[in-house]
Parts: sequence; C-alpha cells; structure tokens
Amino acid sequence: MSKIVYADNAATTALSKQALEAMMPYLTSEHGNPSSLYSFGRNARRAIDNAHIKVADAIGAKPEEIYFTGGGTEADNWAIKSVAELKKSQGKHIITSSIEHHAVSHTLQYLEKKGYEVTYLEVNDVGQISLKELCSAIREDTILITIMTANNEIGTILPVAEIGKIAHENGILFHTDAVQAVGHIPIDVKQMNIDLLSLAGHKFRGPKGIGALYIRKGLRLPSNMLGGGQEHGLRSGTENVAGIMGLATALDEATVHLPENMKKVSAMRDRLIDGLLKIPHSKLTGDPVNRLPGTASFAFEFVEGESMVLLLDHHGICVSSGSACSSASLDPSHDSSQREAFARKPVGHKKRF
Amino acid sequence: MSKIVYADNAATTALSKQALEAMMPYLTSEHGNPSSLYSFGRNARRAIDNAHIKVADAIGAKPEEIYFTGGGTEADNWAIKSVAELKKSQGKHIITSSIEHHAVSHTLQYLEKKGYEVTYLEVNDVGQISLKELCSAIREDTILITIMTANNEIGTILPVAEIGKIAHENGILFHTDAVQAVGHIPIDVKQMNIDLLSLAGHKFRGPKGIGALYIRKGLRLPSNMLGGGQEHGLRSGTENVAGIMGLATALDEATVHLPENMKKVSAMRDRLIDGLLKIPHSKLTGDPVNRLPGTASFAFEFVEGESMVLLLDHHGICVSSGSACSSASLDPSHDSSQREAFARKPVGHKKRF
Repeated sequence: MSKIVYADNAATTALSKQALEAMMPYLTSEHGNPSSLYSFGRNARRAIDNAHIKVADAIGAKPEEIYFTGGGTEADNWAIKSVAELKKSQGKHIITSSIEHHAVSHTLQYLEKKGYEVTYLEVNDVGQISLKELCSAIREDTILITIMTANNEIGTILPVAEIGKIAHENGILFHTDAVQAVGHIPIDVKQMNIDLLSLAGHKFRGPKGIGALYIRKGLRLPSNMLGGGQEHGLRSGTENVAGIMGLATALDEATVHLPENMKKVSAMRDRLIDGLLKIPHSKLTGDPVNRLPGTASFAFEFVEGESMVLLLDHHGICVSSGSACSSASLDPSHDSSQREAFARKPVGHKKRF
Repeated sequence: MSKIVYADNAATTALSKQALEAMMPYLTSEHGNPSSLYSFGRNARRAIDNAHIKVADAIGAKPEEIYFTGGGTEADNWAIKSVAELKKSQGKHIITSSIEHHAVSHTLQYLEKKGYEVTYLEVNDVGQISLKELCSAIREDTILITIMTANNEIGTILPVAEIGKIAHENGILFHTDAVQAVGHIPIDVKQMNIDLLSLAGHKFRGPKGIGALYIRKGLRLPSNMLGGGQEHGLRSGTENVAGIMGLATALDEATVHLPENMKKVSAMRDRLIDGLLKIPHSKLTGDPVNRLPGTASFAFEFVEGESMVLLLDHHGICVSSGSACSSASLDPSHDSSQREAFARKPVGHKKRF
C-alpha cells in the first residue's frame, strides 16, 4: 500500500512530535525512579509535578486534583466503582445515558449485578439526552450521574455544564467520561460543575497506556490501587514518567492551539460531510451542530459496515464502523436511534476503543 | 555532577537499547489501534500477539495466560482482590509473609478491613520464611497463599516451588509477586506450581507503566477493568502497544542472557559486599546464598539511612535506604529481623517502588 489516509483519529491519534520529544529523555538518560531520594530521581519527580500542572491548567483544575492512570478505561472504572462504594449508605441509584462508552456502561452493568440500580436515559435522533428526562429520573437515592462529554462514535457533544448544574442542585455527584472531548473542545471542570472527569492521552496525540482522572478537591475517593502510595496515595505503582510527560505535553499543545485547530478541523469535517452526503442512501448521524470538530459519522443504507471498512482499507483509507471496542465486536452503534433509523452497522463511525 | 554511579537497579532500571528500538515504531509510524479492523491496526495487533508469546516463553507459560497491566502494582492488586472475591464462599483466610512489597501488604490490609483474615509469616534473620510454619498456618478456610519470589530490599530468594507445592497439596491458590525476580533468576510457573504471578517491565530494563499478570489457564478471575474487552476481556483499555513491545523485548533479552548475566552480576555484587563489609559496624542483610544476583543490602549501625543516601548522592552515587515506596516514606525495612538487629534504617537497600 503506497499511501494511507488515516481517518480514524477518534479511535487513536498519532503521537505528536513535541510529545515524543518530551518523552525521550525519560526513555533514555533520565530513567531514575521519581520516588527516589537522590537527585537523579528528583528530576523525574519534578517532571511529574510539572505534568500535573499542565493537565490541570488545560481543564481548569488544580494540580493536586489530577491523578494519572493507565488510561481512560481505568479512570472510568475507578470513578464509577469508587463513588458507588463511597455513597452506598446514601443510595444505590445511578443515572447515565444509553450511548456511553463500554468503559462506563460495562462498569454500570457490573454494579447492577451488585445490587445498584441504573437509569439509562434514551437519546433523540441526533444523540442528545433530554434534560427534562434527566430531572425526572433523579430520585432520593441517586448518588451519581455519569454522562459522557462527547460521544465517541457519532460525535455529539452533550450539555455537560447543564447536567452538572442539575446534579449539584440535587446534591448528586457528576462524573463525565471526557475521553473523546479533552484536547478537542474547551473543558473547564469548575464552570461545568464536574466532580470527576476521565481523559486519555492517545486521544489527543499523547501516548497510549496513560490517562488521568480529575477528582474535585474535597471529594475523598477510595484508592484505586494499593501499594507504594504514588499519586497522593490514591493510585500506587511506579509512575509511567515518559507516558505522563507525553500526555501532558500533547494536552498542553492541543490546548494552546485549540481555537485554530477547531476551526481548521471543523472545516475539513464539513467538507467531508458535504461530499459523502452526495452518495445515495447516505445519512449523517449525530448532532449536526453540537458536534466534535473531528468527527464525521454516517449511515449507509443496505451496506454492511465491516465490508465497507475492509474495502476502504484496500484503498488505503482507515475508518471504523459500528460500535466501540474490540475488533471481535461487530455490534452496531449502541445509539438506539441509529438502530431504528437504518439497517445494521452504520459506516464511517469513528470508534473509540 | 560529572559522573553518576547508578546503584539502584532494584528500584528501576534503564531501558535497554533493544527495548527502546522495539518501542519506537509504535511511538511513531505504527500508531494504529490494535483493535481496528484495517491492516494498519492489525500490525499493532500482531505485535501484541507476539509480545504475549515472548513473555509466556520467558516464564514457562502459554501466551493466553499472560495479561498485560499498567504495572506490577496493578497485577498484585488484581490477583489478590480477585481471588478474595472469587473464593469468598469457600473461606476468607489468606497467608502471606511479613516482608511483602506494599502492593501486596497494603492490599491485604484493605481485605482485612473487609472481613478477611491474614496470617503474616515471620522471617528469620536472613529473610526466609519457615515452610513448617507455613504448613501450620494452613486452615480449612485458607483460600490464597501470596508470597513474593524475591524480596525487593534485602534480595532474599524465597522457596517458591516448595511453597507452591504445599499450596496445591492443600487445594489453595498460590500467587507470587515476582516483580523483583523475573528477568533476574529462572522462573517457570508450571514447575514452580504458580497459579498467579506478577511482573513489571521497568525491573528488567523494560519501560515503566507496563506489567503483566500470569493467570493459570482454567482459573477464571473476575475482570480487572471493564470496557472494550481487551486482553481476552479481562483487562479493558486501549493497549499500551509501545510499552508492551518494550516489556516483551527486554524480558526476552534478559532471558536469553540470563546465565551469563547472573554470573557477571553476582560477581560484581560479591565484590561490592566484600568491600563494604570491611567498613566497621556494617552488616550484610538478607540471605547470603539464596540471593538475587544484583542485590547487595547492608545495615550500618549508628547511621541514619537518609543521611547516607543524600551524602552518596552528593558523590554521584544513587542508592536507596529503608523500606519500599514513595519518597515521603521514611519507614525502615519491614523485615522485622532487621529492625531488631540494628538501629533504624539500614542503608544501601535496593528499594522497589
């Protein structure tokens, strides 16, 4: 294959040059353990401290509110399971949307087996929840609302600030899986009333295998991993210094260039949408207005998603079909509106893994 | 500082040249998501499949028995918490040693708060447990024995094969934290009767932030993280492809060169021991015979550990003192025999974080 058109940046992105450069010292000469007392280790410690500052600045948080994890999935699992554990004496009801990533939805299914009750808010034909339905779903025993900032497949951006406001007016904690959104649209955890936010490096040109959970100060979650006491005692394990540096550098870069990137990428997206909608039996999925700049998602009537992915691959074009997750999964998007509107497996979805 | 003598390879090692070379494609051109259907993603999938084979080969396991994690701490937490959950209907008693890494001991303390009972086997003056005491500690409701393969501070190698045999004769699962041992001494999970084994890349010249748990086939542990279904459905999250390649390559390299490395490193260790024992009031800690090739650990009477670490740092020599874990921790080694034999904080311990 001579040339590849990589059109699957919603699944994972290429590491940025700056991020790689920031990582290299920690993969070569600066290999000290950040928990060591000697100066060689303290260099790595300083790097991690700076990374906390950079990530915090990018989302309007404080450095001590950022906890690095092994990825977005770990952050989602930690946030949701921990709140369930922390608040179980107050209630066992959780509200979510029907279009969450499996890292959230499978974790909630696990909790359902443990006796928790989950309300899944349906979405309309552009993937939006109804705030009215959200308000109606709130009960005395609701302990958590977990709704994604933006959908990984159809690109719909959800009204997170309003959801957070409703949560706080009702004394309920609010977690958002912002893995698909951070680095692509402006995020401010304080303005958006967010208590817990998950993000992942590889979605904004950082490396794979590193993510973070923002935990609002004052909210005392149980430890995610027990051991040496790293990450303020909540996420033990020798720090992935190179990964942390890569994530922080890529996020800083994305944040600095956010306005121009959004403008440029949106224009490319719209050109792609205009072109593809000229194909008969094609339809845009997701919200046409409140939409991630980099996500164009379509359904093609009468066409199997996987066949089209493989055919496009044959032409050097990388796209994703159907729902998120592992290659073995051939389920269509779990946005139920799409399931009804069209035959199986809309194609061109940017999936997130 | 003109020249650094890095003598803290028990805390963390420098990434090997081969491991870095194996990682670089996945940090640059080969950035595809291994769960993608298109060929660009399938390259990453093949790399991960090969990494499973390499790691399995190194410890006498099958590729499908290897599950990559975010590090050794995650592997320890997963193994211990999962067995506790899986076997709780059969009993809530666990046996361990008194010199485990905090990733094990703190996880056990957590379980104690949840109603589990833990027997901590004392060690003798060279850090060895008594197999007779182990046998006596076994009860009807014992569900797990978790004892480390080699100690991270004093370097004592424990009789893992015998411990595993005793465990299996009594129908008890055996987990070993082999983070300090893998890549440094021969390990064969089948011959050693091991059901669960934790390892970490950065201990054998692989990268930080990546580890693995060996789970014996047939033992069905609960998922560690829920989501996209990666790692045979047990450890979801987009794979850290570069990290996995780095770990597998470094382990393969360490395994190929194991006999010559053991010989060379042991000779250096013994020379260091001979020299340092000439210092008045010094004492070797740990087992003089069953000892990790690369670990030399001493106690110096009347001397504060941290002062010596900082003084040696001033001379460009990196060593560790006291017990494992984060820099804030100034506890002495939790090998209680050392605590009695000497004043606080033996110095020169290779600590593991």
